[in-house]
Amino acid sequence: MKKFTVINLIHRPEGKVIKPELFEVIQKKLPAVNSGEFLVKQTHMSLDPAMIGWMSSDTKSYMPPIKLGSVMRSSGIGVVVESKNTDFAVGDRVMGQMGWQEYLITNGKAINKVEVQLPDETILSVLALPGLTATQGLLNIGKPKKGETIVVTGAGGAVGSIVGQLAKAKGLNVIGVVGSDEKADWIMSELGFDGAINYKTEAFDSQLTKLTPDGIDLFYENTGGFIQQLIIDRMNPHGRVIVCGLIADYGKAVPAAGPSWMNVIKRRLSIQGFTMTDHYKDIPSLLTKLTPYVVQGKIKHRSHIIEGLESAITGLNLLFTGENRGKLIVKL
Amino acid sequence: MKKFTVINLIHRPEGKVIKPELFEVIQKKLPAVNSGEFLVKQTHMSLDPAMIGWMSSDTKSYMPPIKLGSVMRSSGIGVVVESKNTDFAVGDRVMGQMGWQEYLITNGKAINKVEVQLPDETILSVLALPGLTATQGLLNIGKPKKGETIVVTGAGGAVGSIVGQLAKAKGLNVIGVVGSDEKADWIMSELGFDGAINYKTEAFDSQLTKLTPDGIDLFYENTGGFIQQLIIDRMNPHGRVIVCGLIADYGKAVPAAGPSWMNVIKRRLSIQGFTMTDHYKDIPSLLTKLTPYVVQGKIKHRSHIIEGLESAITGLNLLFTGENRGKLIVKL
Repeated sequence: MKKFTVINLIHRPEGKVIKPELFEVIQKKLPAVNSGEFLVKQTHMSLDPAMIGWMSSDTKSYMPPIKLGSVMRSSGIGVVVESKNTDFAVGDRVMGQMGWQEYLITNGKAINKVEVQLPDETILSVLALPGLTATQGLLNIGKPKKGETIVVTGAGGAVGSIVGQLAKAKGLNVIGVVGSDEKADWIMSELGFDGAINYKTEAFDSQLTKLTPDGIDLFYENTGGFIQQLIIDRMNPHGRVIVCGLIADYGKAVPAAGPSWMNVIKRRLSIQGFTMTDHYKDIPSLLTKLTPYVVQGKIKHRSHIIEGLESAITGLNLLFTGENRGKLIVKL
Repeated sequence: MKKFTVINLIHRPEGKVIKPELFEVIQKKLPAVNSGEFLVKQTHMSLDPAMIGWMSSDTKSYMPPIKLGSVMRSSGIGVVVESKNTDFAVGDRVMGQMGWQEYLITNGKAINKVEVQLPDETILSVLALPGLTATQGLLNIGKPKKGETIVVTGAGGAVGSIVGQLAKAKGLNVIGVVGSDEKADWIMSELGFDGAINYKTEAFDSQLTKLTPDGIDLFYENTGGFIQQLIIDRMNPHGRVIVCGLIADYGKAVPAAGPSWMNVIKRRLSIQGFTMTDHYKDIPSLLTKLTPYVVQGKIKHRSHIIEGLESAITGLNLLFTGENRGKLIVKL
């Protein structure tokens, strides 16, 4: 009987490094496909910053923590290889929550067919969590207006790069904050950002002042760190902050303090945290908003592909170090 | 010719103590009342935390800073003693921005007649800035729902005490944070709060946990300080934070850091800063919401009266030390 590889989470992370000991790699036998079920061979798997949160034990978070001893949670894309479900035929491309495993048997709950003719990497990089998150955060929460100035942190990342391009398409002045000169070059020359700051090497405050002469109306936050306060302090009255991610703080026992609320009052700012888990029902309408920009070539992306299921274990750390160039994807 | 006392702001504050040297007390001659103008004798003057902001030089704030050498800004109530304006007759009670002076000549702009038959202290304590601020912040921004739990900081203060009583009237579980046992007793026994914590003497974290067994849905912030993070960490998903004041930070050169945004994401919190200056046009509708509670005796208040125009100078410090018991008012 055929065997396949599964990676279970067996310990919760401490600190900012994902150690191999947190996981166990096991071989499982493929069980039989029962009536109503189908078998998916996963082809590509997405690695996302949110996964670190799922690995922790915070029960008040937006998703229940992954149970220790069960398969590591992740989204992916694959192909149906056996089916006893009338809605899914052998050969169908499907995506959804598949976990760190080569195969899965499912009844189709939370699994959707992929109809669009685009490569796996493009779908996982744009028309999946990153693009949906960018669209919900920027368009539905941020409500950007032509001529406004937006600062996007993690602008070289999967979500930030799409946020910036969507904002550009909406006619905003778009400034990206990144962690390397290479990413700064990329978002300016390839993605069309109006400005970029490498927070690791540049004088952030003076660069920000130079690039935002009319202040900041929107702040799309993906990273956290010392730059938060400096951005808040340049915000215009009635500015909006969309809090999407804090990669700098994931895995810290005690997250760093945030910005003072003084300017939240003085400038009457609004700060809104969100996660896509509240908006799964909105996915069709989000795709309706996002897809035309992709079709028109206004949303470019790049994928950082690593190979083999087990590469996911060390691959997660790339998200913390910022070494990934583009959307992190595991090819199975 | 009759003279009267005026207090001008001549220096901007540094640090957390309002020193007498920041002001000059001068005697002015009453000018003649021209056509369209009227003369008001101020009877009671309001001292509010927001005044510290007006004294500073932040030009991006919601109100322009007070110009050095001009009269200190404040709101007050008074009586018309001479009039060449057809809308205002001698004997009319009026309120509005009057400044630190015994008399003022005005054309009536931003001055409103007081029609309601209540003492000056009640009007300045409830049906003026404190009550309007509480109503806007709690009802229009916070949108409280019966059965929810709210934590109000500065709960013994002018705004916080009204927020708590309005929330109680709306059927919420209301916990107040105060800085003295006397205030804790007052908000529990007189105002009907469900719980009170004196953050200066009690183990804040364990008390908060005990008093909010179902978590916190609404956080009405008037003070700032270390308690912010502890309150945020007990908030329920989709909780709302109304940022109204940060008395602990006013006058600091560098305000204290705020809470981490980690739970802003995980719990999908919204944080909204506001000031009443954006809502002057809403005052009639706010009064329509607030007045019935006052008429029904559901909003109690107490005023802390100090006497004489010059007492305002040292009086402002009471707001920082928290020594005032109730709405701080200067009787002229």
